[in-house]
Amino acid sequence: MAGRKVLIVYAHQEPNSFNGSLKTVAVEELSKQGCSVTVSDLYAMQFEPRATRNDIVGCLHNSDNFSYAVEATEAYKRGCLSNDLIEEQKKVQEADLLIFQFPLYWFSMPAIMKGWMDRVLVQGFAHDFPMCYDTGLLKHGIMHFCGVKVLEPHICFAPEHVSEEKRKEMLIAWAQRLKTLWKEEPINCSAEWYFK
Amino acid sequence: MAGRKVLIVYAHQEPNSFNGSLKTVAVEELSKQGCSVTVSDLYAMQFEPRATRNDIVGCLHNSDNFSYAVEATEAYKRGCLSNDLIEEQKKVQEADLLIFQFPLYWFSMPAIMKGWMDRVLVQGFAHDFPMCYDTGLLKHGIMHFCGVKVLEPHICFAPEHVSEEKRKEMLIAWAQRLKTLWKEEPINCSAEWYFK
Repeated sequence: MAGRKVLIVYAHQEPNSFNGSLKTVAVEELSKQGCSVTVSDLYAMQFEPRATRNDIVGCLHNSDNFSYAVEATEAYKRGCLSNDLIEEQKKVQEADLLIFQFPLYWFSMPAIMKGWMDRVLVQGFAHDFPMCYDTGLLKHGIMHFCGVKVLEPHICFAPEHVSEEKRKEMLIAWAQRLKTLWKEEPINCSAEWYFK
Repeated sequence: MAGRKVLIVYAHQEPNSFNGSLKTVAVEELSKQGCSVTVSDLYAMQFEPRATRNDIVGCLHNSDNFSYAVEATEAYKRGCLSNDLIEEQKKVQEADLLIFQFPLYWFSMPAIMKGWMDRVLVQGFAHDFPMCYDTGLLKHGIMHFCGVKVLEPHICFAPEHVSEEKRKEMLIAWAQRLKTLWKEEPINCSAEWYFK
């Protein structure tokens, strides 16, 4: 919808890939709707997936026993996270819609996407925007836990094993879904009390 | 058992962590048994978790459309993978026992461990060594698929929320299990035909 902000977190090495095409289709369709679309292209940005001490600027809370969860939380409160994290978190905070676009591997997502999740969302943002994503691993855990309304995943199965025509149909179906995405109801996740 | 080779793939930023202690206990106990123990300390090695074009030395199979799976497989056949991959694959090939030691996060494993799996095991090694690991995500997919005999996971729940005494008990229980690990029967995974 016009005026809405969309963040697409995209993880693929190859712009010509089917994932790249799905991302482009989303940028085009959502821009056409008047949305302001931002893409975090993790490979192109050379996003650092490792969660390390480098994520904390300045002194540690407890340098004798480094706990990433503790240190990142304390640094978040003090505004002492590294710039790449602050920038991604800002994009997440501003977004009305989050789309994760990435290939599904055996472990459900590429390491760089997992690194983005680990580093950007580790403090547990609590928001209220809908999210469209491609796999099931995230929905009951981090996303729903953070207060995100989760939409039905949109999965294109084995694009490398279907015809060119079928791939085009998949792209059209994705564009089509995006036209009415804002009217979709969130899917059911675990009850709120589950996290209390 | 004496003479056996063990590879511990270890992912934690802090040597003083409980994960670090579990790793140390394993090194000590297995060395005492006469095993030759190698540790891949992923954070200390600054292991690169991103699966990129840098993993392939020299020309690509298809530079117009980079597919990591295709390129890594072709490079593996030609012996043209990057040195850090070749070294880790060599360790895996030589090992009689693989132990993955890492904290369980919401997505089941830290990004750097997932990166190790993605990059080192992407070609689908087929071996016949037992493996001891800490989570369930891997067993029916990549490990069993690769011909690895999978042992029961060894999970220590919420070590940061129990007493020091309880943590010591956990370390002792792990050392105790390692004493008879070689006699353990592999757990049941998906049937062989599942992957055919």
